[in-house]
Amino acid sequence: MRHGIAWGHMDRRYWGGEEGGEMSEETIEEFQEERERLNEVVMRYAGLSMKRFYGLDGQVYRDGALPASIKELLGLVSSFVLRCDDCVKYHVVRCHEEGVTSEELEEALAVGLVVGGSITIPHLRRALDAWSELDGSGKGGGTEAE
Amino acid sequence: MRHGIAWGHMDRRYWGGEEGGEMSEETIEEFQEERERLNEVVMRYAGLSMKRFYGLDGQVYRDGALPASIKELLGLVSSFVLRCDDCVKYHVVRCHEEGVTSEELEEALAVGLVVGGSITIPHLRRALDAWSELDGSGKGGGTEAE
Amino acid sequence: MRHGIAWGHMDRRYWGGEEGGEMSEETIEEFQEERERLNEVVMRYAGLSMKRFYGLDGQVYRDGALPASIKELLGLVSSFVLRCDDCVKYHVVRCHEEGVTSEELEEALAVGLVVGGSITIPHLRRALDAWSELDGSGKGGGTEAE
Amino acid sequence: MRHGIAWGHMDRRYWGGEEGGEMSEETIEEFQEERERLNEVVMRYAGLSMKRFYGLDGQVYRDGALPASIKELLGLVSSFVLRCDDCVKYHVVRCHEEGVTSEELEEALAVGLVVGGSITIPHLRRALDAWSELDGSGKGGGTEAE
Amino acid sequence: MRHGIAWGHMDRRYWGGEEGGEMSEETIEEFQEERERLNEVVMRYAGLSMKRFYGLDGQVYRDGALPASIKELLGLVSSFVLRCDDCVKYHVVRCHEEGVTSEELEEALAVGLVVGGSITIPHLRRALDAWSELDGSGKGGGTEAE
Amino acid sequence: MRHGIAWGHMDRRYWGGEEGGEMSEETIEEFQEERERLNEVVMRYAGLSMKRFYGLDGQVYRDGALPASIKELLGLVSSFVLRCDDCVKYHVVRCHEEGVTSEELEEALAVGLVVGGSITIPHLRRALDAWSELDGSGKGGGTEAE
Repeated sequence: MRHGIAWGHMDRRYWGGEEGGEMSEETIEEFQEERERLNEVVMRYAGLSMKRFYGLDGQVYRDGALPASIKELLGLVSSFVLRCDDCVKYHVVRCHEEGVTSEELEEALAVGLVVGGSITIPHLRRALDAWSELDGSGKGGGTEAE
Repeated sequence: MRHGIAWGHMDRRYWGGEEGGEMSEETIEEFQEERERLNEVVMRYAGLSMKRFYGLDGQVYRDGALPASIKELLGLVSSFVLRCDDCVKYHVVRCHEEGVTSEELEEALAVGLVVGGSITIPHLRRALDAWSELDGSGKGGGTEAE
Repeated sequence: MRHGIAWGHMDRRYWGGEEGGEMSEETIEEFQEERERLNEVVMRYAGLSMKRFYGLDGQVYRDGALPASIKELLGLVSSFVLRCDDCVKYHVVRCHEEGVTSEELEEALAVGLVVGGSITIPHLRRALDAWSELDGSGKGGGTEAE
Repeated sequence: MRHGIAWGHMDRRYWGGEEGGEMSEETIEEFQEERERLNEVVMRYAGLSMKRFYGLDGQVYRDGALPASIKELLGLVSSFVLRCDDCVKYHVVRCHEEGVTSEELEEALAVGLVVGGSITIPHLRRALDAWSELDGSGKGGGTEAE
Repeated sequence: MRHGIAWGHMDRRYWGGEEGGEMSEETIEEFQEERERLNEVVMRYAGLSMKRFYGLDGQVYRDGALPASIKELLGLVSSFVLRCDDCVKYHVVRCHEEGVTSEELEEALAVGLVVGGSITIPHLRRALDAWSELDGSGKGGGTEAE
Repeated sequence: MRHGIAWGHMDRRYWGGEEGGEMSEETIEEFQEERERLNEVVMRYAGLSMKRFYGLDGQVYRDGALPASIKELLGLVSSFVLRCDDCVKYHVVRCHEEGVTSEELEEALAVGLVVGGSITIPHLRRALDAWSELDGSGKGGGTEAE
């Protein structure tokens, strides 16, 4: 896997404002802004247990015996078979940052598809649509080869 | 069950443009266009396993010892208890094409409701809302009897 | 589908004591006895809502626009994709009583397998193992052709 | 817990038109209107079993050995771990009506978060966002302390 | 709710060796011993995140704005609708310790049954069977009134 | 990761008859024999779709852009969050064969635990119990260090 890309640069590099206009659903940038806003709402109410859970949720994906990229793939496939679009989208972004390739992502999602069945297909569509946005090939568009 | 209606005619017969305007959510036609666009995104990335899964997903609903109409009801109820709106909507359309009647659809969903519990009710609402669109009685509207 | 077989005769016709001895897990007969015992425990505690739910659970599978056999297949596949072994076993028995054939059962479970994915395979094994017990071909045994 | 607030007053007291304008997603009022419209669609098709289920669904949350407020918390947490946003939103509103406090709601959701895992976090965000709307502190906004 | 019963006394008071003999499945005492043995296996492998999760899992059920008894009911119903027998059994025991009454438990499970559907019934049977063991009326036995 | 161990040697190397006696539940060897027997039952009934699904289920875990060891970890964590004990046990064995280390397995399961919540803990116990059997440290036993 190639080296991960720092989060801070992502918004500029991977999706510009102009593609955003023609998409019916929110861009990844909008998704992340809404996610941040809502996390602030959670933190306004959160007690100690909830805050500790949030801490744990960050900790468990850090490099260890398994590198962060593999942990993100594990988080992605877990979220995928449990069919949580927001979680899938989040891990798709994180996989991209960690340098996961299109082939690796596809193979991980293929495992998830076989384990989880056709009920996961709508999530597969949205996962790969988000990936195509990060991937530079645009949302559902383009003539460029993979 | 009466004979199924060919897919190609569906958009003209079952929902006209004028109702579409007052609905807050996408029509079935829009749903199918988006679904098609996203399936193309999937196919741009799909490896052999993913493609084979797609093939299998088409094959399993074909006429056999059980007719396609029953298999679509089975697909519908499976998707319903697993609470996948896109899958439910897809099978609602397919059931309509295969000539499933309103009474048959209702009874199948009633089994799903008892098996799956009140957690399925939001999906029941959306399933029957999509059905009413196909059924000619309009989305949430009208005084016409079932 | 051929005519269903009355419940009362089932224990005598479909599993004799002698096969039971070599099976590691409970026979369908033992399963039903334990089920009955536990339903009595439930009824000792059940309030009105719980009792009404039990009533509804019986009512929803009765002949209507869809025959009971199809409703049992719907109940079977719902239980199968939700991965409840006891529910699957119960509907396998009921399908057999309603005259569902091996081919029909297999096709229904194939829909469930594609919808629900490989995570359902352990339940598929147990469903077909129970069916083979009812089917007269014995649990995991025999040289007789399907 | 303090005394519940009557449903009829809720729309006026807890969310005014002015906050609604800046929110990207539907307000609770819009959510309830759409829910009502769709329940009417369900009732146009519903047979006896489906109607009985609806009746049961109302009955089970009434005061008994456990007060309605606790039953709503149980309904909330069940819906939360099963990850049904519409059900969660409905029970958040009902909890508010039954006088559940922010602290009680947070603790109940914390149990759900630990039981159900990080996959519930997007639902946690939306649950607390809906609560903040009822709570008077506005959707994602404000400087007021909890 | 009446006052909880201390854990240490439970094994002596609520199930003696003699009833155990006639039960086909493990007693609550055996369940707890196996659970403890397996938790030791987990702790032999557990890293920091896993240990923190275990800590959090204990913390979240403690008395707060909601008393521990209500939190145990929330844990019970969450586990029930997610259909985890071991978790259900654990919370049934904890509810009993916290002084939850049979009526309260039944009403909580009735909410879970309506939310989760008939797919939860096998778990309802086993939950109430475990409760009857704690309740002194014996497993599936007896003429004593509730 | 170190090199995988060939399947054919597994039964001899990783669990001997003598530990088996003190275990209350089936050994991995017994698990695999029962699994094989039941797969034969499935194949007696399986039509073309079912057989193709089985083929696909083998194919998707083969070395590709991601090595088989990572795919097995993905299969393990998917099965784990979907809470299928048989699937988890199968992938635990396959991970061991592919040379996954205890630390890697623990970190993968820690991701699953955080994603899936405390409802997965009974499966975590059984997963690590099976691993300890393969790992040579015995089922729940021993003073040997990890």
